[in-house]
Parts: sequence; C-alpha cells; structure tokens
Amino acid sequence: MTRTRLEAFSDGVFAIVITIMILEVKIPPNHPTWEALWDIKGEFGAYAMSFVFLGIYWVNHHHFMHAVDRVNGAILWGNLNLLFWLSLVPATTAWLGEDFTQKIPTAVYGLSLLMPALAWTLMSLTIIRAQGPNSKLRAIIGRDLKGKMSGLLYVLAVAFAFLNPIISDVIFVGTALMWIVPDRRIEKHLG
Amino acid sequence: MTRTRLEAFSDGVFAIVITIMILEVKIPPNHPTWEALWDIKGEFGAYAMSFVFLGIYWVNHHHFMHAVDRVNGAILWGNLNLLFWLSLVPATTAWLGEDFTQKIPTAVYGLSLLMPALAWTLMSLTIIRAQGPNSKLRAIIGRDLKGKMSGLLYVLAVAFAFLNPIISDVIFVGTALMWIVPDRRIEKHLG
Amino acid sequence: MTRTRLEAFSDGVFAIVITIMILEVKIPPNHPTWEALWDIKGEFGAYAMSFVFLGIYWVNHHHFMHAVDRVNGAILWGNLNLLFWLSLVPATTAWLGEDFTQKIPTAVYGLSLLMPALAWTLMSLTIIRAQGPNSKLRAIIGRDLKGKMSGLLYVLAVAFAFLNPIISDVIFVGTALMWIVPDRRIEKHLG
Amino acid sequence: MTRTRLEAFSDGVFAIVITIMILEVKIPPNHPTWEALWDIKGEFGAYAMSFVFLGIYWVNHHHFMHAVDRVNGAILWGNLNLLFWLSLVPATTAWLGEDFTQKIPTAVYGLSLLMPALAWTLMSLTIIRAQGPNSKLRAIIGRDLKGKMSGLLYVLAVAFAFLNPIISDVIFVGTALMWIVPDRRIEKHLG
Repeated sequence: MTRTRLEAFSDGVFAIVITIMILEVKIPPNHPTWEALWDIKGEFGAYAMSFVFLGIYWVNHHHFMHAVDRVNGAILWGNLNLLFWLSLVPATTAWLGEDFTQKIPTAVYGLSLLMPALAWTLMSLTIIRAQGPNSKLRAIIGRDLKGKMSGLLYVLAVAFAFLNPIISDVIFVGTALMWIVPDRRIEKHLG
Repeated sequence: MTRTRLEAFSDGVFAIVITIMILEVKIPPNHPTWEALWDIKGEFGAYAMSFVFLGIYWVNHHHFMHAVDRVNGAILWGNLNLLFWLSLVPATTAWLGEDFTQKIPTAVYGLSLLMPALAWTLMSLTIIRAQGPNSKLRAIIGRDLKGKMSGLLYVLAVAFAFLNPIISDVIFVGTALMWIVPDRRIEKHLG
Repeated sequence: MTRTRLEAFSDGVFAIVITIMILEVKIPPNHPTWEALWDIKGEFGAYAMSFVFLGIYWVNHHHFMHAVDRVNGAILWGNLNLLFWLSLVPATTAWLGEDFTQKIPTAVYGLSLLMPALAWTLMSLTIIRAQGPNSKLRAIIGRDLKGKMSGLLYVLAVAFAFLNPIISDVIFVGTALMWIVPDRRIEKHLG
Repeated sequence: MTRTRLEAFSDGVFAIVITIMILEVKIPPNHPTWEALWDIKGEFGAYAMSFVFLGIYWVNHHHFMHAVDRVNGAILWGNLNLLFWLSLVPATTAWLGEDFTQKIPTAVYGLSLLMPALAWTLMSLTIIRAQGPNSKLRAIIGRDLKGKMSGLLYVLAVAFAFLNPIISDVIFVGTALMWIVPDRRIEKHLG
C-alpha cells in the first residue's frame, strides 16, 4: 500500500474542513452597511484563527508523511483518528466565534486543538515503534520544537479559559503567529 | 483507463461525505454552557459512529482497488453505485442522531450501512467474474472475514431495531470497535 | 502543462457537486416515522437521478480527457464552462424534487442537463479543430452514440415539460437507465 | 518536499470554494414559476461572476506553480494566505448577490478580489527573491500583463463603488470577459 492515496484522502479532508468553516461566516442579509460586517467580527476572527491552526496541521502532516515509509492498518486508523478530531474544529470555531469572552466555548475550542495534537502523538509513537531504532520519524519529531510547544500552549489555553478567556485568546493568537512568522532555522531545515 | 482517477474521484467523495456530516452537529447558539454541549450528544455520537463506518469503507476501498488491474465500465458504475449509497449516510446519521431509541431511524441507519455492503458485493462479483479463475480479488475477498461479519451485523442491527433499538446501537458500536481495535493478524496481512 | 491537474481539479468539482446535493435531502426532524421518509420521496428521487446524470458526465469526462494530448487555455476555460453548468444541477435538482409534476421546474431541470451537453460539444469542437485531421477525439466522439442521444433526449424532455412533465420525467429515467444498464458493445470498446 | 501535494491541496480548496457558492443560490421553495427564477437573478449573476474570478485564480495558480522548483515553508504559508483570501469570496459573493447597486457590498466584493491579488504578489516576490537572478518566475510574471491589469481593475472597482456601484459592476464584468475571450497571443505563450 502506498502513501499517495492516504495523502490524497487527507488533503481532501483538510481542504473541506478548512473551507466549510466559511459557511458559518454569514454577513447578515438585507443590511448593506459596515455595521453588518462589524457584526460578524467574532465569526471572522474565529474563522481566520482556525484557518491558521488547520494550516499548521496540514503543513506538519505534509512533513510527517515524508518520514513514513510503510503504510499499515495502524497508520490508516491513526490518521483517521487525527482527521476525526480536526473535523470537529468547524463546530467549535462557530461556538467560539459567537463570543470570545465566554469560558466554556473558549475551553472547548482549546480542547478541539489539543485533541488532534494528542491523536498526532499517538500516531507518531505507533510509527516510531514500528520503524525501530533508526526511525526517521523519531529524528524529525525530536527536532519538532514548535509542535511540542503548540501542544503545551493548547493545554495552557484550556486551563486559563476558566480564569479569563482573554488570556486563552492571546495564547491562541500567539501560537498562530509563532507558525506564520518566518523562521530562518526552519527554512534551513526544510531546504 | 487507469485506476488513478477512479481512486481520486472516490477519495474526493469519501472525504466530502465524511466531512459534511459535521455540518449537522451544531452547538445551540447563544448558550455558552456545558448543557449546550450535552444537548448535541446524540448528534455527536451518531457523527463519530458514521465517521468510523465511512472510514472502514474507505480503508477497504483502498485495499480492494489494489486487486483491480483493469478498470472498465462495469467497475466505474459499480463504484458509483457504492458511492451513491455511502452518500446517503449523512442524512440517515442526522436522523439517528436525533434519538437513538427510535425504531425506524435506527433501522434506516442500519439499512444505510447495509446497502453499500450489498453494492460492494455486487461490484466484487462482477470483477471476480471478469478476472477469471486466478482472480486476485477473489483471494482477498475470501480472507475478508471482517467484511463478511460486518455485513451480517448490519442485517442483525436492522432486524433488532424493531424489537429494541438499543440492541442495534450496541451492534453498531461493536462493529465499529471490531475495526478500530488493532488486530495482529491483519497487520501481518497488510505488511 | 499537463492533464493531471486539470483532471484532479475537475474530479474535485464533480465529487463536491455530486455530494453536496445530499444536503438538500433532509428527513423532517422530530418525526421518527415511515411517513417522514415518504415525505422526501421527491427530493430523494431527484437526488438519485442527478447522481446518475453527474455520474454519466464524470465517466464521459474520464474518457474524453484520454483523447486530449495538449492542454491549452481554450480547454482550461472550456472545461471550466462545463463545470459551471454542472455546478448548477444541485439547485435545479432541489427545485424539481419539490414536485415532479410542475412544468417550469421540470423544464429548467432538463435545461440544466442540456447546458453542460452544449458546453461539452463546444469544448469538443475546439479541441478537434486544434488536433487537426487525425484528431483522436473526433474518432471517439464519432462513436459516442449514447452521448448524442442523451443530448437529444434532454431537448425532448425540456419541450415535453410544457405539455406534460410526467413525459419528461420518463425521458429522464430512460436516459439514466440507458447508461446504467450494461452494454456489451461498450465494454468491448473500453476493453 | 514536492509540489504535488501543495497543488492537490490547493486544487481541493479551489474546487470546494468554487462549488459551495452554489449553496447560496436557492430557488425560493414552493413557487414553481419563472418569477421564482427571476428572484434569484442577483445571486445567480454574482455566482457566475465569482465562478469566473476563481477560475482565473485557478488557471493562474496552475501556471504559477510550474515556475516553482522548490517548495519551502515560505511558499506553503504564502499559498495558504492566498487560499484564505479566496475562501472569503463565497461570503462576499452572497452579500453582493442581494443587491448589485449597494455601495458597501460592492466595495467589499472588489476588496475580496483584490486581497488574493495582493497575497499573490507577496508570494511571488518571496519566491523570486529565493530563485535569485535567473528566476523562472520573474520571467513569467514579467509577461503577465492580464494579471497586473486585473489587480489595477480591482482597485478601481473598489474606489468607484463609493461613487456608483454600477461602474464597479461593469469593471467586474469587463475583467472577467478579458480572461474568457480567447487571446491568440496567450495561446501561443502556452503552446
């Protein structure tokens, strides 16, 4: 079994999950005014943020699969598990978009970012064990500082949501920026 | 005609069917509470279950196509027939998600899993006949115990729905678990 | 420029158009009865029919592209024109599904099948002219009796809709059956 | 890292964005009349227009990627930035479709075409700098007169929207026609 179809299916799911979220961003009908746009600032902000997070997962999925030589049942189901949790992001994004200052939607949103990170780790461990002592994936994961930090930041965001959701929002934005802002060391690594 | 485009189109349909189901899982707006989440436990459970069943069909489709050398009109239409029945799953999932204890939605949900299994069998028989006595597909299908058991379990679930839908629900969950829980023999087979 | 990406993008659009139609087939909520299913018989019938027609277009697109050696701007836009008309089918399907006995929705549905056929012809003529006297595509199109008959049947269905929509419905079903029922000559041609 | 998966993911997003817009074009239910069709002329016109604009971006993306040898983090995120802005087009299209004569929806629609053009330019500059003095991309961009004119026309359309939205509409249609109408010089360039 080759990696191609696994990637094609995953790309399809990523593309759909990332795009159907826009169906939640509806400008109120029959109000051709700036106020109508301002009304959806929450939905739009949540959409933009989730677009970045799903983009992060897609970019990493891309790198990850390059270190996988052999696709077996465990990786197929590990990958489906990852995609399952990612597919929930549109629902939690719509909930957060209603009001960024609410504790539970903020915590649940953080959780919906954390669960795929855990699914990711689970999938990684399975593959690393299968690849044995010279695991290519272990080497890549070992250097994946941003990935580890993101997981930790999602945990912090969930915890802080119950104290003050604004702190969680700042953590979300900071995590997204950490990935978007170019990083010379990463470029060298990818080169 | 090559297999590539058949797979690409099927992957697209699988990815879309599996993902648009989430559009039915809507957290009630303007209730930033745990109760709002609890309200959609049925929809969420049905979504998770159908995600697994569609995942099962996708994984099997993947294996199946590897035993197909020659794509002809019969397989193109047999595959479209399979995808047609799978495309109904989001509608039956939404119906089941409203209430797992209702007889008719439970039976119809079971039927919506059984129909693709029948479409699958029909497609298999056509290809096996075309491949002749040394059919690669016959060999794979012969060993596909889980596939045969799943078909039988879907029939049982439909029948029990009229007695007690909870029994059907248990059968659905059991069937899904049978596929998710790792199985060493299957791993060897895929290796 | 290669054919691969044109096919991949077209497959994506086909897969999405064919699948989002199911979003219109909603079993009425809070009625776990056979009557609820019976209520959507029109939507379901229209969905099944359009699934077949889009399947026909997809299968033919598949064959068609195999006779195209060189992708240029004209074929890119000719293909986008075809996909545009196909993308309208979900809207006309939903309209027809409300009531199969209404003149205007039936005529508009027939029109929504006829327009892609015209877009197809336009694209074919452009390519045949570009390929010159030994056009591979001309040879395939010349033998494409079913394709020509389908175009004619769509015209008839539009015309009859204003007399009696039921006649048009019969024509739609007949056309779909013509493609689904296996045909030995076609199998040989594809072999 | 190869270009294939970047293209596959982008094609998926293009296909979904271009197709989900049709979900906004709903023929009013229970009115099987020509008036019902006439009611959605605005939505339909906006849909057709955006289909062409997204088609333009897709065709250009196609050409653009052929001049990219090496995919790095900057291009992955530059491309995601482009797809993000394109993914907003369905929302602005639905707003414009309500009434083409409204100033703010017209300006916002123009802006939603301009932003991807800016994202495009940003991505191009990054790649050209990376490719150095013999940049293949610089050569292609240098000749891309239509692309440059489109960007300028989007700016003009945004500006004129505040004076008279009809002028902007004319500019939108003119820009779309500029791309659809065949151009011998472009054909030669692609040949």
